[in-house]
Amino acid sequence: MLGEIMLRLSTPGFSRFVQAQSFDLTYGGGEANVAVSLANYGLQSYFVTKLPANEIGQAALNHLRRFGVNVDYIVRGGERLGIYFLESGASQRPSKVIYDRAHSAVSELKSAEVDWQKVFENATWFHWTGITPALGQLSQKCLEEACKAAKAAGAIISCDLNFRKKLWTPEQAQATMRPLMEYVDVCIANEEDAEKSLGLNVKDSDVDQAKLDETAYFEIAENLKRDYDFQTVAITLRESFSASRNGWSALLLDKKDCQKPYHSRHYDIQIVDRVGGGDAFAGALIFALLSKKNTKNALEFAVAASCLKQTIPGDFNLVSAEEVEKLAGGSGSGRVER
Amino acid sequence: MLGEIMLRLSTPGFSRFVQAQSFDLTYGGGEANVAVSLANYGLQSYFVTKLPANEIGQAALNHLRRFGVNVDYIVRGGERLGIYFLESGASQRPSKVIYDRAHSAVSELKSAEVDWQKVFENATWFHWTGITPALGQLSQKCLEEACKAAKAAGAIISCDLNFRKKLWTPEQAQATMRPLMEYVDVCIANEEDAEKSLGLNVKDSDVDQAKLDETAYFEIAENLKRDYDFQTVAITLRESFSASRNGWSALLLDKKDCQKPYHSRHYDIQIVDRVGGGDAFAGALIFALLSKKNTKNALEFAVAASCLKQTIPGDFNLVSAEEVEKLAGGSGSGRVER
Amino acid sequence: MLGEIMLRLSTPGFSRFVQAQSFDLTYGGGEANVAVSLANYGLQSYFVTKLPANEIGQAALNHLRRFGVNVDYIVRGGERLGIYFLESGASQRPSKVIYDRAHSAVSELKSAEVDWQKVFENATWFHWTGITPALGQLSQKCLEEACKAAKAAGAIISCDLNFRKKLWTPEQAQATMRPLMEYVDVCIANEEDAEKSLGLNVKDSDVDQAKLDETAYFEIAENLKRDYDFQTVAITLRESFSASRNGWSALLLDKKDCQKPYHSRHYDIQIVDRVGGGDAFAGALIFALLSKKNTKNALEFAVAASCLKQTIPGDFNLVSAEEVEKLAGGSGSGRVER
Amino acid sequence: MLGEIMLRLSTPGFSRFVQAQSFDLTYGGGEANVAVSLANYGLQSYFVTKLPANEIGQAALNHLRRFGVNVDYIVRGGERLGIYFLESGASQRPSKVIYDRAHSAVSELKSAEVDWQKVFENATWFHWTGITPALGQLSQKCLEEACKAAKAAGAIISCDLNFRKKLWTPEQAQATMRPLMEYVDVCIANEEDAEKSLGLNVKDSDVDQAKLDETAYFEIAENLKRDYDFQTVAITLRESFSASRNGWSALLLDKKDCQKPYHSRHYDIQIVDRVGGGDAFAGALIFALLSKKNTKNALEFAVAASCLKQTIPGDFNLVSAEEVEKLAGGSGSGRVER
Amino acid sequence: MLGEIMLRLSTPGFSRFVQAQSFDLTYGGGEANVAVSLANYGLQSYFVTKLPANEIGQAALNHLRRFGVNVDYIVRGGERLGIYFLESGASQRPSKVIYDRAHSAVSELKSAEVDWQKVFENATWFHWTGITPALGQLSQKCLEEACKAAKAAGAIISCDLNFRKKLWTPEQAQATMRPLMEYVDVCIANEEDAEKSLGLNVKDSDVDQAKLDETAYFEIAENLKRDYDFQTVAITLRESFSASRNGWSALLLDKKDCQKPYHSRHYDIQIVDRVGGGDAFAGALIFALLSKKNTKNALEFAVAASCLKQTIPGDFNLVSAEEVEKLAGGSGSGRVER
Amino acid sequence: MLGEIMLRLSTPGFSRFVQAQSFDLTYGGGEANVAVSLANYGLQSYFVTKLPANEIGQAALNHLRRFGVNVDYIVRGGERLGIYFLESGASQRPSKVIYDRAHSAVSELKSAEVDWQKVFENATWFHWTGITPALGQLSQKCLEEACKAAKAAGAIISCDLNFRKKLWTPEQAQATMRPLMEYVDVCIANEEDAEKSLGLNVKDSDVDQAKLDETAYFEIAENLKRDYDFQTVAITLRESFSASRNGWSALLLDKKDCQKPYHSRHYDIQIVDRVGGGDAFAGALIFALLSKKNTKNALEFAVAASCLKQTIPGDFNLVSAEEVEKLAGGSGSGRVER
Repeated sequence: MLGEIMLRLSTPGFSRFVQAQSFDLTYGGGEANVAVSLANYGLQSYFVTKLPANEIGQAALNHLRRFGVNVDYIVRGGERLGIYFLESGASQRPSKVIYDRAHSAVSELKSAEVDWQKVFENATWFHWTGITPALGQLSQKCLEEACKAAKAAGAIISCDLNFRKKLWTPEQAQATMRPLMEYVDVCIANEEDAEKSLGLNVKDSDVDQAKLDETAYFEIAENLKRDYDFQTVAITLRESFSASRNGWSALLLDKKDCQKPYHSRHYDIQIVDRVGGGDAFAGALIFALLSKKNTKNALEFAVAASCLKQTIPGDFNLVSAEEVEKLAGGSGSGRVER
Repeated sequence: MLGEIMLRLSTPGFSRFVQAQSFDLTYGGGEANVAVSLANYGLQSYFVTKLPANEIGQAALNHLRRFGVNVDYIVRGGERLGIYFLESGASQRPSKVIYDRAHSAVSELKSAEVDWQKVFENATWFHWTGITPALGQLSQKCLEEACKAAKAAGAIISCDLNFRKKLWTPEQAQATMRPLMEYVDVCIANEEDAEKSLGLNVKDSDVDQAKLDETAYFEIAENLKRDYDFQTVAITLRESFSASRNGWSALLLDKKDCQKPYHSRHYDIQIVDRVGGGDAFAGALIFALLSKKNTKNALEFAVAASCLKQTIPGDFNLVSAEEVEKLAGGSGSGRVER
Repeated sequence: MLGEIMLRLSTPGFSRFVQAQSFDLTYGGGEANVAVSLANYGLQSYFVTKLPANEIGQAALNHLRRFGVNVDYIVRGGERLGIYFLESGASQRPSKVIYDRAHSAVSELKSAEVDWQKVFENATWFHWTGITPALGQLSQKCLEEACKAAKAAGAIISCDLNFRKKLWTPEQAQATMRPLMEYVDVCIANEEDAEKSLGLNVKDSDVDQAKLDETAYFEIAENLKRDYDFQTVAITLRESFSASRNGWSALLLDKKDCQKPYHSRHYDIQIVDRVGGGDAFAGALIFALLSKKNTKNALEFAVAASCLKQTIPGDFNLVSAEEVEKLAGGSGSGRVER
Repeated sequence: MLGEIMLRLSTPGFSRFVQAQSFDLTYGGGEANVAVSLANYGLQSYFVTKLPANEIGQAALNHLRRFGVNVDYIVRGGERLGIYFLESGASQRPSKVIYDRAHSAVSELKSAEVDWQKVFENATWFHWTGITPALGQLSQKCLEEACKAAKAAGAIISCDLNFRKKLWTPEQAQATMRPLMEYVDVCIANEEDAEKSLGLNVKDSDVDQAKLDETAYFEIAENLKRDYDFQTVAITLRESFSASRNGWSALLLDKKDCQKPYHSRHYDIQIVDRVGGGDAFAGALIFALLSKKNTKNALEFAVAASCLKQTIPGDFNLVSAEEVEKLAGGSGSGRVER
Repeated sequence: MLGEIMLRLSTPGFSRFVQAQSFDLTYGGGEANVAVSLANYGLQSYFVTKLPANEIGQAALNHLRRFGVNVDYIVRGGERLGIYFLESGASQRPSKVIYDRAHSAVSELKSAEVDWQKVFENATWFHWTGITPALGQLSQKCLEEACKAAKAAGAIISCDLNFRKKLWTPEQAQATMRPLMEYVDVCIANEEDAEKSLGLNVKDSDVDQAKLDETAYFEIAENLKRDYDFQTVAITLRESFSASRNGWSALLLDKKDCQKPYHSRHYDIQIVDRVGGGDAFAGALIFALLSKKNTKNALEFAVAASCLKQTIPGDFNLVSAEEVEKLAGGSGSGRVER
Repeated sequence: MLGEIMLRLSTPGFSRFVQAQSFDLTYGGGEANVAVSLANYGLQSYFVTKLPANEIGQAALNHLRRFGVNVDYIVRGGERLGIYFLESGASQRPSKVIYDRAHSAVSELKSAEVDWQKVFENATWFHWTGITPALGQLSQKCLEEACKAAKAAGAIISCDLNFRKKLWTPEQAQATMRPLMEYVDVCIANEEDAEKSLGLNVKDSDVDQAKLDETAYFEIAENLKRDYDFQTVAITLRESFSASRNGWSALLLDKKDCQKPYHSRHYDIQIVDRVGGGDAFAGALIFALLSKKNTKNALEFAVAASCLKQTIPGDFNLVSAEEVEKLAGGSGSGRVER
């Protein structure tokens, strides 16, 4: 894992920013969230980033360490830790995120500060997201070298496209992301990523209306797979009925068990905290592709895991593989476990 | 705005009064809530009341000031600040309000303590609710003088009937409210106000059963408009499925675009805090009638605004006009705004 | 009431155990919860248990006293207070209970430490649950003597079967519980208790799937009544749609008004805290059987009461009889009570 | 005990009123605090008051019950519960109390609502404070009848003069209090009470300067004893070095072991919450006079108890007799007790 | 007032950064703190700054508005709000501040964005601190124009030297600050400012040792006054006995009543929050110089006010002039005010 | 490190147990605290214990991991995690600890469950405390084997005598501890340990009176060193002025720089949380003996470190070596570090 971990400051309960007298504090970020998921499932999980050499940076590092992520390759230094402010929405009122991530230490990480060969020595998988190259040229350079080293070490490479419109334009994204796709084996996307990050032509689908056109998504997956010759394409499908209730499922297309797009079971989620849902999906998919025989089962595991994430406060998906299996295997009844 | 602002003490989470070890503290009251809404939308908004000359009174004043309300005409003195205790309900358990508002400073405000001419110097609108005259004869006198001064200054006058059974009987209310209607241009009511405050004969409608008979409400609106020759009549319609989930819409009848009753879009709300929903409606309606060309749009704005209020803790509707427009304009999907 | 009260430590909000930095603290336990319900309804309610002679034991005693339970027969001493840790679930993520109740003071209560005759002097009712005999042989001995003394004093005896798989096996439970049924007049059970605690043959009913087969439950009730010649059999029926939403109803079979199984009104509950729901049912049923003429009404009272419990945090059902009547009598609309 | 219990709302930490977003909530009041002290020491302690018939009144009653006070003679009804707001001071910034106690239920308690004979049936002691008659004529009437009934039942009567300048003037106080002294056996006062409540001529002593002139206080005690022929006179002596640190001691003069004024051990207290310190003294003195052979020891017990109170948040002195003995007996070292 | 207001995030209680799971949130900054002090004392107080056009910026603005500061000249826009993280120390453990203020909106405020003439139209005083020019060249330019406009409008200009070593070196500070002194009438400094900001040669004084050499400070004041021909020089003197306890006083030298250095009364403070102590001094000094006849009294007012600040959490000094007078006039005994 | 880590549940602020509605939650225990100290100073630190295989055990493990302790040798299983309840004292009211640690997983750890050879493979130091053998025979066996393995691996062995009277009697302690001293190189004790754990004859020293007789302690140290031929003896000296203020120092006697007892600098501490102070001393002493040339400096480092601990909430001493050096090197002034 290479990427950013940010200080997350969220208003308690359903307070708005202008009401808050305190912030709940945790740490999170696309790739960090994936790293924690993998550690939860029992894998050795490394996270590479740069953190400022002050107590705020130390607290972020401790947070990763607490949940079992290996922090040996984290570089210390730089100006500041990126921050994101989160206001939890409810019903018709959407959640709001204010980013204050510019000038972060990780965006100033130079490739030479990391010994990529050593990082990937025994690596079997390298995961990154579209957020990292959006942080700037230094990060793009890091990413490229990481991809090369991972490839050289024989690791599978997965990418969650994760387009962020506050970080770059679709044009900038496409110019950077397309060439990087050559390294990618497993491509993960949501409804709008494929269009914004890779320029894929998507039929008009009004995501806000919570209507999902399954065949349109099948087509996206097929085009992605064809254009970039991915081993695996996975797309998460979110139906936003309201800030409090979402539909959730995903589809998989690969060269193995899902040579036709396979659409997973569908969950109707009472949202506690949807931030990190996509990362929970990616983390669980990686684990499941590594550990399960059938890729359909891998997808079901990933969808169940990311459904559970959205019932947990904070960015991290603090669930065990057993808990995920239990849901994927049938029961979402929420009976008390005594 | 003339009226009361109270200290609001609510139990945290879903605790009952007998469980609480702390109270969340804010300030609110019918007209104060409207004043804050208007300030949020960028209007100059004045609030006239009387607050005790101690720190509790000061904190109430600060709370208005914080959200942009002009407090220049607030009188200081009197015995105490009114209090209301709030216990948040859930599912089949209703919220509970215990009032401790007798002997409040505002109920002792004498008309001579306020320079009404100066208050309404450049005023374009004067809003009051049925709570103010229910506080006693001093308040009734204040209100009458305020209405006269507002009328003289050419301001539009709106009234939210807001019947409160703990403050007076329907008979008392009607004896006081009916003559005051002569000053009113815009009349706002909910399901039971018209009957209790003005004695309007309403066909039996079991509000508890969450069944709303649209035609009955159309008739109420038409009778109100005919009997008192209002410019505009607006009625909010709440369907209480449970303490956690309400239906919400409104209808408008006026001499402009809604010469036949116009029933707004309907929202299905996951309730965070429904107190102040009606005030948010009134505040948004005033703003929208002042700023929008079409009164149907004004109603849609008001319904969307008051829907959003019910997703925010506290009495005040801390939303911007842009946020309201976004919901009224279509999207209630609650997608995260990054 | 004879039984255990435990220290309950629950994570705030929807946090998982591994996230918690504080625990909300209260006290509860099957029979204690029933005792509090009865005190709330205005009955004289005694609770017999053993509490350690330290401040934690004192705080548990104070908690009972606070809610009006008579603590005169509580014995002080023993090693420790039992604890249960609770993590609140949401949506597809179930709540989790970790018991740390072994070696508790009450499990070491010897029958000779209590003057059973005096306890039951003017008693009209004795309630116990299947948890007490599961605590060990000392507790079984206590229970047997209590039953005898209660019977001798002419009290009605009710038992909530309450099977706990972490305390004993179905085999152990049946060997102990069956003989005790001879003392029982009113038998209360949930979906799985009858099978696990008494060995009743229940047709396969997948409780996790939230599908309830009414006739199967009718049959269970009838078999229970026939096999043990109970005065009254009551069964609660929970449909777990998710950790956040449950269906809730109950059925009654007796020798009076419900000679055929009577299935109560059904409630669709937005869960705040479902722990103690069954105890709230038992408490309300006892009160209603003692105070109501018609046993159908008694059942409706009990179902409404236990519905309300599930909207209140903590084990105790802090509602008044009036509040229950209001719900049972029709309104579950959750309108604010001002 | 006859008197008022109020809702106490205090700002958390050292926040000022204008900063607070929540209030810590407890209940307290002069006589209620004494009642709780006595219950803590294991005596049967009754509290007579009037509480509104709503949940706020119920919560106050529960709070007394929780700490073991008998509430059988509490009358329910009336308009409201008195409230006091508390802001905790620190260092040079004094604590602030805002009273909102007018129109409280207890101030409307009529003597006829209480069966005084029954209340004092087996009473050995009756305690009241100067706050009760300050609440108005109804309360004075209650108090007089209570004193008569107590006297008739052979109970000892103690009075804590407790002058409150916001409730009445020294003139009013003296006119009411002096005649009541005829019933009083044990008189408790602080530095200024004797002067304000009874008109005793006190030599100028600048209490703010934290200088205490022992002989002046000896004289006050002697004059009190002589003028009213009290059995016992006790005076607490507080040196306010700052809001965070106080000196604390007391003196006793009686017809037994302290025929000359006896000045207790002196404590230097790091204040946690000084409200209720005087009541803790009164409660402990009553207990000790009832249970100890030597009145010097009784005074030392009372001073130690009230020292401990000031290290505990809230009005109530939640200490056991053993804890007090331990401090009075020597150790104030604050070593951890494991 | 021209300057920065920052988001202040502090750990609750005495937690260290690496322990925190939430931050208490408020807003503060040198000049903002002074503006709030002046508003508290009843003066019209304007604050000029630039705040980002998001909700975090709005919350900062609301915070100023809440405490009565006029926000009409605040510019909206720019990248981010500066942040400072605060960890409260205790005893031998010092408090820690981590700044994250680079790239703040105010540091990008261009002089042309403000209409200085209008800002100073009726101004009688302009206060700034050495932090503003340390933010960069744009801020220096703003400051210079503000000084010119203030001078032209006839306002008195005060400057708190406030050296911040994380923002610039002594050399940079001196090069910038010295020429600006030409505009300054009232110069405020602490122990080390004069040396670092203006290059004054100060005899070695080990501030950490809490020993203060009065004559050395007298000399600093005299040199400052002579070198820059200030009307008034005020120096605050802090003795840090520990993070929990500080000595506090100040001295004044002016052309009026203190032509020889006047050393104020000395306070021994039990610290609640010392951040903002110097700003509270400056704010109170400005108010007192404007409203008091004797400058010695003005200094005593300022020292008492800033003593009180250190007993209040947050940056702002939320005290009234009456409270300050009461302390300055003699009583620091911290008796409860009822 | 071999030992117990417990769940620590403490009342917030200065609340007593009977007031608490929540517990602050952390984890701690003699040896765990030492392990965290060492990790903070940058050493590789291993902790061996047994934790239950549930989420409470996992949270304890995560807590160690968060602060950098290596958890590779922690065994999972057993019945429960030990708990200790903590009530924070203040002024004359002592803190209270209630242990609920019987039947803990670690007390059931069998020596065969740990591969001691592997644990000590590259170990340079092994630390244990007198608590571990007090847990029972299984723990004594573990400890003995650990000592043997450590010795074999060439590690230095330190023991903090840490007598706990709730776990065993002095007689039991001495019978077990004396033979174990043969393995110990560095012996750490407080005022009473030497007497209780090893039966050393100590002259009467009234520890409660906060008077410390230096020569008596010198004698204890010399006797300890002579009787058991320790390399190093260190004794911490606490003067309990009150629960809020303690004196703190230590003395060292060794075969190197302190051949005569060396008494360290003395600190006067405003206590935040004194639990873990002794462990902080042990941890810092180990680090300093390993890294410093002069053992007097090592003692000063250890005393400064453990002084700082007592200003931090929780068991763990979350300070860096730099922070300790800064205090040991002179400054305890508590100036803000910006």
